[in-house]
Amino acid sequence: MQKSSLYLFIILLVSSITSCNQSSVSNEEESTTQPFAIVIHGGAGAMKQGMMSDSLETAYKTTLEEAVRMGYQIIADGGDAIDAVTLAINILENSPLFNAGKGAVLTHDGSHELDASIMVGTDRNAGAVAGVTKVKNPILLAKAIMENSPHVMLSGKGAEEFALENEIELVHPSYFITERRKKALEKVQQKEMAPNNSSAFMKDNDLNDYKFGTVGCVALDKKGVIVAGTSTGGMTNKRWNRIGDSPIIGAGTYADNAICGISATGWGEYFIRSVAAYDIAARIKYANQTLEQASREVIQNEIPSLGGDGGIIGIDKEGDIVMEFNTDGMFRASIDKNGEVSVAIYKE
Amino acid sequence: MQKSSLYLFIILLVSSITSCNQSSVSNEEESTTQPFAIVIHGGAGAMKQGMMSDSLETAYKTTLEEAVRMGYQIIADGGDAIDAVTLAINILENSPLFNAGKGAVLTHDGSHELDASIMVGTDRNAGAVAGVTKVKNPILLAKAIMENSPHVMLSGKGAEEFALENEIELVHPSYFITERRKKALEKVQQKEMAPNNSSAFMKDNDLNDYKFGTVGCVALDKKGVIVAGTSTGGMTNKRWNRIGDSPIIGAGTYADNAICGISATGWGEYFIRSVAAYDIAARIKYANQTLEQASREVIQNEIPSLGGDGGIIGIDKEGDIVMEFNTDGMFRASIDKNGEVSVAIYKE
Repeated sequence: MQKSSLYLFIILLVSSITSCNQSSVSNEEESTTQPFAIVIHGGAGAMKQGMMSDSLETAYKTTLEEAVRMGYQIIADGGDAIDAVTLAINILENSPLFNAGKGAVLTHDGSHELDASIMVGTDRNAGAVAGVTKVKNPILLAKAIMENSPHVMLSGKGAEEFALENEIELVHPSYFITERRKKALEKVQQKEMAPNNSSAFMKDNDLNDYKFGTVGCVALDKKGVIVAGTSTGGMTNKRWNRIGDSPIIGAGTYADNAICGISATGWGEYFIRSVAAYDIAARIKYANQTLEQASREVIQNEIPSLGGDGGIIGIDKEGDIVMEFNTDGMFRASIDKNGEVSVAIYKE
Repeated sequence: MQKSSLYLFIILLVSSITSCNQSSVSNEEESTTQPFAIVIHGGAGAMKQGMMSDSLETAYKTTLEEAVRMGYQIIADGGDAIDAVTLAINILENSPLFNAGKGAVLTHDGSHELDASIMVGTDRNAGAVAGVTKVKNPILLAKAIMENSPHVMLSGKGAEEFALENEIELVHPSYFITERRKKALEKVQQKEMAPNNSSAFMKDNDLNDYKFGTVGCVALDKKGVIVAGTSTGGMTNKRWNRIGDSPIIGAGTYADNAICGISATGWGEYFIRSVAAYDIAARIKYANQTLEQASREVIQNEIPSLGGDGGIIGIDKEGDIVMEFNTDGMFRASIDKNGEVSVAIYKE
């Protein structure tokens, strides 16, 4: 029932957005002093210009723009950042293009294990889920864990039991499968089998299919609330119920109304070891860095110094947006505090 | 084979320590300028003086002293902090007194789910494991994940498969069961069943049996390497494959040779939301706080401001030790850079 009204809402929004195609969104409430803004990512990786067909590139951009506009409309209408973040992430999870929800990458044994987390900057409440196999939209489960359980982080079968009790939509695991991800797994495993190449599965980065493609969103609403969320299928060929940075508060996701909100994408192990999302916040809080300076330091120096790569998106309490990455590209889109829309894939 | 030589080593150490009962350990290498030190905890909680029998109190203190002395001996002999940390934690895991390894608290359905993590400050490499049911010493599995896998964090059955492949000792789940923890679960579940008291399982804190008792160790060795580790059974009556802060790098465990090492114990959800272990390091790194100031801020202000409680142990690069908690007590022991031994339970 909650879901059907959400879908109705989405349909109404899509129809209202279809008629609005200019690159700047009109904002009826310019009198407000509280800035609001939204930014999303669909993964950072080795996407070089010309590698993708035009039609695939258009598909990515169209979905990114749809997600960021839908999320923006919620906060522009005075709604909550948490609804903007979950709606934008739902759209990316439901698209087979991204490595989250439908289209998630395959594990070593050909199954899916999905991770997600969400954090609300007002009271730094948070919810996270790791290793679920049947939850259509893991970000909604993360939100339910935050709101309806005494815990922050649940995992595996227990998390799915909680999902069932909380009427979070479950699907047959076959729902997540796409031909593209099956081929990516085959390719990585062929490399893994090659002589003298046992760790090839850590190196392949063909068109984002290997370890990137995580999705995320950060929004600042008119009440000054910052929410950050992240959802992922993890790394192609991952084993042993590996948990990456996406469901780790402080690594893949962080939000504090007084500082900023961050969602990360990249080689999760390095984002965990550098506590990347919170390190950006800590640099702003304790070292008086700007969001831009802090993000650049962490993404261009800190993560590479450990050997990792990836990117982050963020919004600070002034509504300033950052989209920082050290890879060839990052699927990303934003609508800033002036209503300017930006959709991009490659370095600029 | 590796294990049998470790046990021989332990036996030799115990016999050498038995003859050494003064409160200061002699240090043959006082000429070194690099300080070395070790600190351990066995959980923070509502332990008031007089609540425990004298014999139970003695048992706690004896085990704490044994663990801290065994770990200290390794670094005093020029060994590695990682060996000191894993040995000290193994002793606490193997003791039924603490909520880690044998004696771990029971989940909602009467089983055990163990979490642990370890981090080495030299390169900030880390390993973590969540929700294992058959691993005798989860800290050894965390170490193996760090050293032998491309991942930082593994969970559940996959982590146990990795344990098997890496010759980490597995035991039948009945190994972990103690009468004391069974009674604690019954008590919490009776309260949970009581009318108007559905969230009682979040409030009971009888003698540390409910949500505390996590163990941890931080050591600084003669090479200047700081290692931190944490191991736990989590919260009594936990459900839905809940993951607490102990296996979360940045929340329950953090180490950086240039700053400090931290291991936390307490109400995990709040340590995750405040990214407690890394926040202490960040305050030292960016705000020029001392380890003592930073720990006090996080434990006495930050965590309680969110509604949580617990404590941390830490060592900074100068070898200064902190044992900070906002509960009635914290099982703890240390041998500082002057060789002074301290073993304590209550506030002083």
